[in-house]
Amino acid sequence: MEKINFLFGIHNHQPVGNFDFVLEDAFEKSYKPFIDVLEKHPGIKMAVHFTGWLLEKIEKDHPDYISKIRGLVQKGQLEIFTGGFYEPIIPVIPEDDRIGQITKLSSYVENLFGKRPRGMWLAERVWEPQIAKSLALAGVEYVVVDDNHFKNAGYYDDELTGYFITEEEGYTLKVFPISKKLRYLIPFEEVGETLDFLKTMATADGNNSLVMFDDGEKFGVWPGTYDRVYKEGWLDEFFTEIEKNSEWLNVSTFSEYVDAVAPKARIYLPISSYSEMMEWALPTRAKAEFESLVSSLKEEKKYESMEMFLKGGMWRTFLAKYAESNLMHKKFLHIHERMKEVQDVPSEVLDEYWKGQCNDVYWHGVFGGLYLPHLRAAVYKHLIKAEKALDEMKNEEAKIFDYDKDGFDEVIIKNDNIGMVVDPDYGARVLEIDLKKAEFNLVNSLTRRYEVYHEWISKAITQEELEKSGESKTIHDVILTREEGLEKYLSIDWYERFSYIDHFFGEKINLEGYSVSKYPEQGDFVNQPYNIIDKNTFLRHGHVWIGAKWTPVTVEKRFSLNGGSLEVTYKITNDSEEEVTLHFGSEMTYNLMAPEDDDRYFEWDGQRHNASYKGEFTSDKVEICADYEEVHAKLTLSEMANFFIYPIYTVSYSEGGFEKVYQGTSLTPTWKFNLSPHQSKELKVILSIKE
Amino acid sequence: MEKINFLFGIHNHQPVGNFDFVLEDAFEKSYKPFIDVLEKHPGIKMAVHFTGWLLEKIEKDHPDYISKIRGLVQKGQLEIFTGGFYEPIIPVIPEDDRIGQITKLSSYVENLFGKRPRGMWLAERVWEPQIAKSLALAGVEYVVVDDNHFKNAGYYDDELTGYFITEEEGYTLKVFPISKKLRYLIPFEEVGETLDFLKTMATADGNNSLVMFDDGEKFGVWPGTYDRVYKEGWLDEFFTEIEKNSEWLNVSTFSEYVDAVAPKARIYLPISSYSEMMEWALPTRAKAEFESLVSSLKEEKKYESMEMFLKGGMWRTFLAKYAESNLMHKKFLHIHERMKEVQDVPSEVLDEYWKGQCNDVYWHGVFGGLYLPHLRAAVYKHLIKAEKALDEMKNEEAKIFDYDKDGFDEVIIKNDNIGMVVDPDYGARVLEIDLKKAEFNLVNSLTRRYEVYHEWISKAITQEELEKSGESKTIHDVILTREEGLEKYLSIDWYERFSYIDHFFGEKINLEGYSVSKYPEQGDFVNQPYNIIDKNTFLRHGHVWIGAKWTPVTVEKRFSLNGGSLEVTYKITNDSEEEVTLHFGSEMTYNLMAPEDDDRYFEWDGQRHNASYKGEFTSDKVEICADYEEVHAKLTLSEMANFFIYPIYTVSYSEGGFEKVYQGTSLTPTWKFNLSPHQSKELKVILSIKE
Repeated sequence: MEKINFLFGIHNHQPVGNFDFVLEDAFEKSYKPFIDVLEKHPGIKMAVHFTGWLLEKIEKDHPDYISKIRGLVQKGQLEIFTGGFYEPIIPVIPEDDRIGQITKLSSYVENLFGKRPRGMWLAERVWEPQIAKSLALAGVEYVVVDDNHFKNAGYYDDELTGYFITEEEGYTLKVFPISKKLRYLIPFEEVGETLDFLKTMATADGNNSLVMFDDGEKFGVWPGTYDRVYKEGWLDEFFTEIEKNSEWLNVSTFSEYVDAVAPKARIYLPISSYSEMMEWALPTRAKAEFESLVSSLKEEKKYESMEMFLKGGMWRTFLAKYAESNLMHKKFLHIHERMKEVQDVPSEVLDEYWKGQCNDVYWHGVFGGLYLPHLRAAVYKHLIKAEKALDEMKNEEAKIFDYDKDGFDEVIIKNDNIGMVVDPDYGARVLEIDLKKAEFNLVNSLTRRYEVYHEWISKAITQEELEKSGESKTIHDVILTREEGLEKYLSIDWYERFSYIDHFFGEKINLEGYSVSKYPEQGDFVNQPYNIIDKNTFLRHGHVWIGAKWTPVTVEKRFSLNGGSLEVTYKITNDSEEEVTLHFGSEMTYNLMAPEDDDRYFEWDGQRHNASYKGEFTSDKVEICADYEEVHAKLTLSEMANFFIYPIYTVSYSEGGFEKVYQGTSLTPTWKFNLSPHQSKELKVILSIKE
Repeated sequence: MEKINFLFGIHNHQPVGNFDFVLEDAFEKSYKPFIDVLEKHPGIKMAVHFTGWLLEKIEKDHPDYISKIRGLVQKGQLEIFTGGFYEPIIPVIPEDDRIGQITKLSSYVENLFGKRPRGMWLAERVWEPQIAKSLALAGVEYVVVDDNHFKNAGYYDDELTGYFITEEEGYTLKVFPISKKLRYLIPFEEVGETLDFLKTMATADGNNSLVMFDDGEKFGVWPGTYDRVYKEGWLDEFFTEIEKNSEWLNVSTFSEYVDAVAPKARIYLPISSYSEMMEWALPTRAKAEFESLVSSLKEEKKYESMEMFLKGGMWRTFLAKYAESNLMHKKFLHIHERMKEVQDVPSEVLDEYWKGQCNDVYWHGVFGGLYLPHLRAAVYKHLIKAEKALDEMKNEEAKIFDYDKDGFDEVIIKNDNIGMVVDPDYGARVLEIDLKKAEFNLVNSLTRRYEVYHEWISKAITQEELEKSGESKTIHDVILTREEGLEKYLSIDWYERFSYIDHFFGEKINLEGYSVSKYPEQGDFVNQPYNIIDKNTFLRHGHVWIGAKWTPVTVEKRFSLNGGSLEVTYKITNDSEEEVTLHFGSEMTYNLMAPEDDDRYFEWDGQRHNASYKGEFTSDKVEICADYEEVHAKLTLSEMANFFIYPIYTVSYSEGGFEKVYQGTSLTPTWKFNLSPHQSKELKVILSIKE
């Protein structure tokens, strides 16, 4: 009789910094009921992966669940996979971190369940060939990736059973292809369809295997799946049918299979991930074109035959597309460099640093990711914690070097209370203001960018409308939106959204235009290079468009940290031979994290306004408070200013459809003044942190 | 006026082990006349790269040329690029070798010409993102790759001027895209076309640049180019026109440009090479399909719009496609491991090892590469030299480990005279027999494989026919062949071509069928696993098809090295309950390098036959001689045998069209004998090397 081996696994993960209620919901809806069903089927063997941070939480909150897992492991029914402890994108973290994070999870699993993992789950299946060595050095024997990885290497579906062996610098690693077909069948189609498909790959020698390994959240957390998988009994039926068909359908752990069956061939896999990720990772222009190409090829029924040669982008491109992702990445690389300078980094410090590598917030597909401020805040929190500890071991002096790896120098300015990064080549803007005590990056905003999916927004309907419509549309057929009217939030920033951005306005400036980044900028300072005078002082000889000509103007911007104060001193000089009127503004973006909550507010003239406030006012003092984040600050100006204030909302696509997300508040004090030829004007903007 | 910068460079390279006359020809036809023309045009600035091995040869043979180059460098007219000294594929050699080979060439260039290179030529432009770090550590500031690399990352032609900056683990590297359009224009089209194209990319700020950097051999060595470039004066005209148009067309060295103009953006480039290489690197089945897809899309005029998303394979796949390439690669990785075990490897030893990494012979496109036995022999020679030196520093014991990284153990057996590698999981065949004194791998053959271009052979014409035809066909329009009738050499081996392959023959065996690998194999030993009994002894309980059923038969094969002798002892046992007649053969393949030369021959019964001899004979002694390679050996059998002998020819495509290449001689002693139930038969095959 022809036989086939079925290797099944699930991957359970929650991003570091995710809300407790989300974790608890996933536990109750997916992690727990899945294992309950498995327990009832002693004939089923499978694998499971928990990321370390999640497993620690579960161990603390649900020790009974851990015992249950341990039982299944010891009976040989369940194999536990390892991975990066905090689920980093393996190829973009340094090799010592790869090995450190993986061995940490392997040891933790071994302690908890009594068996050291041999297999590894690769975060987002982001593969680059050189990681084979790191994984081997971390004691990983095999890894599961997508069949897409193999197709991208020029291999065909009919070749993609069993497992292969790859190599880097002589270090070998076994690689299993996950069947995309099975990923789409389980648990969305009838049980019988999966069995029918498995049967087509059975062979006389019985050595073939097919792999399904996918997110555990597909079994209970994804919309509609809890009912399907548990209430309607899909999973129980699936396991029952497998047990019934054990004559030809052998369920096996990965370790049993590897011990019994040899690798099929040596293989080298290119940089790859699942095909959706590769599409998301393309630069926006190419992404739009690729999506439309794929959909027209599908219409013409030509896609399938070309699919293996049609390749999207690589994960690393997220770092080129999104400055905010790059800055988090370069922050942890900078910490990595600093750790080389101290002896014996304590494991708690290493842990904070590693938590900051958790992948979810470094990229953006159709779910939130980078667009979620609380996850970015979590990355900053953990990285700031690690930095504070390093500062105590070895104080970091102000540094001038290429921090963000754009080919130009940035400047780190620090004291005991505040750490900041100035970016001279792009307006001498401030990329980051870390409040050390609060462990909070006050900037942490997001530029409003065009995303290809914005094109669909006019077709989007709310959940309510969907339910009313009565049609049995599935989640794949409709485009949802969490609220109506999001079109009006679709602004595109023409410059990246950081702080201390130097504007010169003209007659036509108004809050409406300014808040949607559509207004006439009269100066050439916003995104142009400043010279580095010293580590605190930056200067640009630029121009302002006045009366239909460019007037030469110099802006000198000096940052100084004094205790809990960041003092910015502007000196603006009229370099022309004519008297001019200038309207200057210094734009700050501060993210108070919650736009409507009463404990986050801006206050002036005794009046509080929450972070979603939009308006104009005149003052020389503004209180800034984000109580929950322990941020209490005051902005003091050397002269009364007219302020623009408005909230920044992005519109992104998520599980629940389009949503607007608060990404901080833009606060711009502006001053109008006359300057005679060669006259200068000094202005001070002082941000004081209250302890 | 709108301006453009034109950055021009040539790359001069010869593979380690290439014939002296080929080097001299390239020098006279290309390297020398090119510089002579350049000298006449002081207004032209450009870059040149010589691989280290070639530069050493030129320094020795043409010191006046070196002085000329030095003069041009010191005048600032010529910029010298660095690279791996022996032009290895950078991503597939260990990081310390990358840094070692690059810094060796940089220092050599600095000594020779007085300036340390800042830019690097990347061999075959085989890029993987992690090498950015190695290059930065080797002191490389910028590298030129194809625009294809950038398109594969999702960038568009109109974005590909100037240069970008990439990063690995915080180490930065600048990357220039080479314009494919310019690669196809220069020097094949009229000078004016290049200038017209350059003009289209001129801009008001004058900061754009376009890069042309390609093989120096395109200027004189490639067919027809010597006449065009020098006799008809194409290059002189090109330089003259550039000088005339200096108002808008600025020629600059790469270093001047980098100092003057900032990088355009941060970028991450996927694994890439030029598009032809990526096509060649696909597994054969995918390569055939990809080629036909591309050509039909071109016909439908749909190719251009899809090109950036249609991607071929990765270089590393050559190691999966060609066992022979993999074995050379794994041999140097093994030496790399061994070098970690000794202190202070002398630089001469490191050099021999690095010579063995020279890329040309590790892959195959349309030119010879892997198909050229003298280049493979050069790799073995240099690697054997390195191994001999290491053996003297620290003797290597016989080792059982996964040498070729296929997931199964191989065995290294060595003494002072011979080193060999046995591959138990595939017939306990012998992959390599290194004669240490001769520094020669006696096996060094090549499996006859299907190549997609074999499909064109019926359309191929000879150079003579082409000239007779009188039509002005260019090299791109016709398929050439070096001789007629090559179809009859198109055999495909069903097993890989190494030595001591254990055959069982039946009634229908004959030399004709055997020599084309189309004959009935009756045993299951050729490519099936043997058990490792001890480091010298291998055993398989297999079967022979006799009288329409499988008869259980055991083959035990013992290798022992005694001085200059490799003694192979076979013990063949009839495990059945019936008397059987067996016809057993042990196939050796020995490459004598030249099939027709009189100093390479096989001799039996006092008769010499050169290496292309095909026939049958009976003997118990065969002399094997390759005088030029200093190989003198004798094969002695314990019993008279009937031999099959035939030459192995591959048919591959090269610059001159299809050609057949001698890849060794298959020599198979066969014995017919009866065995009663459970009876064994012992046979010895002794190969003795004469000093």
